[in-house]
Amino acid sequence: MDAERRKIFGQIFFPESLAIVGISRTYSGLGGQFFLKNLQRAGYPGRIYLIHPTAHEINGLPVYPNLAALPEVVDLAVVCVPAKLVPSVMEEGSRKGIHNLHILTSGFKELGTLAGSHLERELQRVALKGKLNIIGPNCMGPYVPASRLMLWGQIPANPGFIAFLSQSGTLTQRVTEHAHFTGLGISKAVSFGNAAVLDSTDYLEYLAEDPETKVIGLYLESIRDGRRFLNLARRINAEKPLVLWKGGETPSGAGAVASHTGTLAGEDKIWENGLRQAGITRARSLEEVVGTAMAFLYLPPAKGRRLFILGGGGGNSVYYADICIRTGLQVPPLMGETREKLTALVPAVGSFARNPVDAWRAFHDPDFMAKFLEVVFADPNLDMIILDRLIPRMTYATGEKDHTPAVIEYLKKNRLRKPLVVVVDGSGEDTFLATEAARIRQYFCQAGVPAYPSLPLAAQALAHLVAYYEKK
Amino acid sequence: MDAERRKIFGQIFFPESLAIVGISRTYSGLGGQFFLKNLQRAGYPGRIYLIHPTAHEINGLPVYPNLAALPEVVDLAVVCVPAKLVPSVMEEGSRKGIHNLHILTSGFKELGTLAGSHLERELQRVALKGKLNIIGPNCMGPYVPASRLMLWGQIPANPGFIAFLSQSGTLTQRVTEHAHFTGLGISKAVSFGNAAVLDSTDYLEYLAEDPETKVIGLYLESIRDGRRFLNLARRINAEKPLVLWKGGETPSGAGAVASHTGTLAGEDKIWENGLRQAGITRARSLEEVVGTAMAFLYLPPAKGRRLFILGGGGGNSVYYADICIRTGLQVPPLMGETREKLTALVPAVGSFARNPVDAWRAFHDPDFMAKFLEVVFADPNLDMIILDRLIPRMTYATGEKDHTPAVIEYLKKNRLRKPLVVVVDGSGEDTFLATEAARIRQYFCQAGVPAYPSLPLAAQALAHLVAYYEKK
Repeated sequence: MDAERRKIFGQIFFPESLAIVGISRTYSGLGGQFFLKNLQRAGYPGRIYLIHPTAHEINGLPVYPNLAALPEVVDLAVVCVPAKLVPSVMEEGSRKGIHNLHILTSGFKELGTLAGSHLERELQRVALKGKLNIIGPNCMGPYVPASRLMLWGQIPANPGFIAFLSQSGTLTQRVTEHAHFTGLGISKAVSFGNAAVLDSTDYLEYLAEDPETKVIGLYLESIRDGRRFLNLARRINAEKPLVLWKGGETPSGAGAVASHTGTLAGEDKIWENGLRQAGITRARSLEEVVGTAMAFLYLPPAKGRRLFILGGGGGNSVYYADICIRTGLQVPPLMGETREKLTALVPAVGSFARNPVDAWRAFHDPDFMAKFLEVVFADPNLDMIILDRLIPRMTYATGEKDHTPAVIEYLKKNRLRKPLVVVVDGSGEDTFLATEAARIRQYFCQAGVPAYPSLPLAAQALAHLVAYYEKK
Repeated sequence: MDAERRKIFGQIFFPESLAIVGISRTYSGLGGQFFLKNLQRAGYPGRIYLIHPTAHEINGLPVYPNLAALPEVVDLAVVCVPAKLVPSVMEEGSRKGIHNLHILTSGFKELGTLAGSHLERELQRVALKGKLNIIGPNCMGPYVPASRLMLWGQIPANPGFIAFLSQSGTLTQRVTEHAHFTGLGISKAVSFGNAAVLDSTDYLEYLAEDPETKVIGLYLESIRDGRRFLNLARRINAEKPLVLWKGGETPSGAGAVASHTGTLAGEDKIWENGLRQAGITRARSLEEVVGTAMAFLYLPPAKGRRLFILGGGGGNSVYYADICIRTGLQVPPLMGETREKLTALVPAVGSFARNPVDAWRAFHDPDFMAKFLEVVFADPNLDMIILDRLIPRMTYATGEKDHTPAVIEYLKKNRLRKPLVVVVDGSGEDTFLATEAARIRQYFCQAGVPAYPSLPLAAQALAHLVAYYEKK
C-alpha cells in the first residue's frame, strides 16, 4: 500500500474531523442523530459538523447547510441523505476537497431494480471522477475504538487486535459487541455494504500493514475481483490468520445476496476450492468467526490434532469424542506414563484413566487441576486440551466456593504451553445458569483463555487452528 | 405389553413405597442421602425405608439393617451399595419378593476390565434367576414428576408429555431441567446406564401405551437387540415421534462408549440405514433432541418444506437462507398476491418484499405482526414460518415497551394454522442479553410456541418435522 492510500485509511479510521450529512432535528432511529449520540457517548475527540438544509442548530450544535459551507475539509463525511441525493452530496464533497465518504443510505443495487442499479452506477461514476473513497452504500461504516469513532456502538469498548470486515451491518455490530464482552477488543471494524467503490481487498491491504491488527474476521457476500482477493488473502493469512464467513453459499442464499448488497454471489464450489488452496479458514456462523479468531489470537501454534478432553459426566465423554472427531480432531487413548499418572490421580476401581477423562474435581480443586494438567502438558502424544466445565446446578445448591479465580491463575501462567480452551455450557433455558455461564466465560476469556458456550464451537476453533498451522 | 409387565412399570414409575439401600449417616455427594433429600423436597408421598447395616436412625428416620427386615414388600429398591455387594442385595430383595431395583452403583462392565464384566454377568444371572427388573447398573434411574419420584431433581417440575430414555445420567438430568424451564414437562424419564437387564426396548414398550407420553427422546449408546429395537421404534414412531441421539458414532466415541456403559456401539452406518428405514428422527445434541421434541409436541403437521422467514437486518437474510437450505428446507421467492400484500406492508423504495423479509416492526407492533402473518398463513405456497427476533441492544437503550405479550397472544390463537417457530438469539457473551433472551424464549415456549436460541436449531427442528410427515 502506497503512502497516499495509507493516508486515506488513516483519515477514515482516525478522522480529526467529520461531517454528518443529513441529520434530522429530532431522534428518528438509525440515521444522523443516532450516529451523533453514539459519537458523543464514546467521547469522540474530533470536530463534528452537522449538515441540514434549513436548520440552524440541532442538539445545541451549529448546523451548516451543505458541505461547501464547512469551515474546513473534513477527514470523513458520513452521509445519511435519501438515495437520490447521494450523488450530488458526493459531488459537493468532491468540490470541497472531501474525498472520504461513508454512505449509510440504502436504495441502490441491493433493491434488485433497474433504478437501483442505475443509481449505484451513477455513484460509482461520481466517485471515479472525483477520486472519492466511498464506504458503502447501504452500510454502517467504520468502527475504531482507538479513535473513539464508534458511530453505532451502544456499549463501551476497548481497542484490541481483531479486525472485522463485513457486508452486513447487523453482524458487524454483533461481532464488535461479542469482542467487547469477551475482552477481545477490535482494532478496526468496517461494515461496507454494497462495496460499490472500496471493496474488501482495499480494506485488507490496509489491515495487512496495520500493527494493531493480528487476526482478521470477514463476512463477505461478494468479491469483485476474486483472483486479487485470493492472492492478497493468501499473503496476509501467512502472517495474520483470516477467518472468512461467506454468505450466499446456497442458491437461495445467493438470491438473498442479490437483494441485500446488490451483487451476485459466486458459485460456492469455486469459492470452496479457492479458499482451500489459499489456506483461508472458513467459518459458518457469528460464534464460529469470533471463537476461531479468539483461538488464533490467544493460543500457541498447534503441533498436531491429538486432543485431550477433561470433562465431567460419563455420558458426556461418549458424545464428546463423537463431536471432536467429527470436526477432524483425534481423541487418542492415553499411553504409558500419562495413563499411569492420571490413573493414580483419578482412581477408578479396577480400571485406568481414559480420554476423555472424567475428573470433576479439577474445577473444585486448583492444586489437583495443576497436577493433572502438568501430566498432560508433558505428554508429547497430546497436542491440545479442552477443559469442559459444565455448570451443574448442584454446585450452586451446595453453596460451594467458586474456585474459578484460582483455576484461571494457573491457566494464565501455563496457557502458552499447549493450545488449551475451556467450555462453559449454560444451556438448558435456565436464566440463572445462562447468566452464570456467560459470566464465567468472560472471566476465562479476559484472562486470555478462550472459553466457548458449547463443545462443538471449541472443537471447531481448535480444528481450524491445527489446520492453519499444518498448512504453514 | 401384557398386564404383568404393565404392573411392573406401574410400580417402577409410581411406587407406593421404596427402599434406599446403602445410605451414609451424613451427606456425601451422589448417593442415598442425595436421593432422600430430593425425594423429600419433591414431596414424594409414598413410604420411604432406609437400609444401613448398623445405623438405627438417619436424618430422624428409622433405619433397617437389610431388605429382609422391612415391614413390607416395596415397589422399588434404590441400590447405592458398593459394586461387589450388589448381587447379594439383589438376592436379598428376591427372597423378600422385591422385584424392581434401580442400581446407582457403578463398577461393572463399563470399567472395561474382566472383573467388571464378570460382576455384570453375575448381576444378570441373579436377575434372571429371581425374575428381577433391574434399572442400570451405573445410572440415575427413573424420574416421574407425576408421582414425585424425583431422585435427582434439583428443581421443581411439572408433568408434561415428553418422555426421555438415556444411557447418560448427566444428559437425563439436563434434559429434565430443559423441559422444566421451557414448560414442556416430562412424563417419564429413565437414566438406565449399562442396561444389563431392562433395555431401551423394555421402556419403549411401556411408553408406547402410556397415555401421558406423546413424544419420546432417546440417548442411546448401545442396543442389545437391534432388530427388535427397530421394529418397535418404527411402530411407536408412527403414533409418537421418536427423536434419537446415538452416542458412539465415531470410532473413538465408540471406544468411550465401551468405557461408559460397557457395551460396544454398533457400526454407525448400519444404524444410519436402519434408523432411516424405520423413519426415526436422528439428533446430535441435547438442544436438538429437546428442540425437536418440542416441535413435534406443539406444531401441526408440516405439509411441505417451503419456509417463510421473517427476520431483521439485511445481512441476516443472506445467511439465514443459507442455514435453512443447508438443513434441507426451501426458502422460495414470494409470489403473486402475497408479494403484493407484503410489499404494501413493508414498503421498500422501488422494490418488493422478499423471503427472508426484513420487518423489524412486527415485533414492535402486534397489529402489524397479525396483518403480516395473515397474508403468510393464507398463501398455499408457504408451508412453515420462522420468526427471528434477534434481541438488539437498541431496543433496551431506547426504553421501548416490550410487546412480546401481545405478540404471544396473537400467536397462541393462530399457532396451529401452520408450523411456526421463533428464534430469540441472545448470543454475544453479554450476560444481560443472554438472560433477556432466555426469559423471552421461556415466554414463547410456555405459550406453546417453540422458541430456539439459534436459527440452525429452529431450522433443524422444522426439517425433522417435515421429514417425519413426509414419511408418514
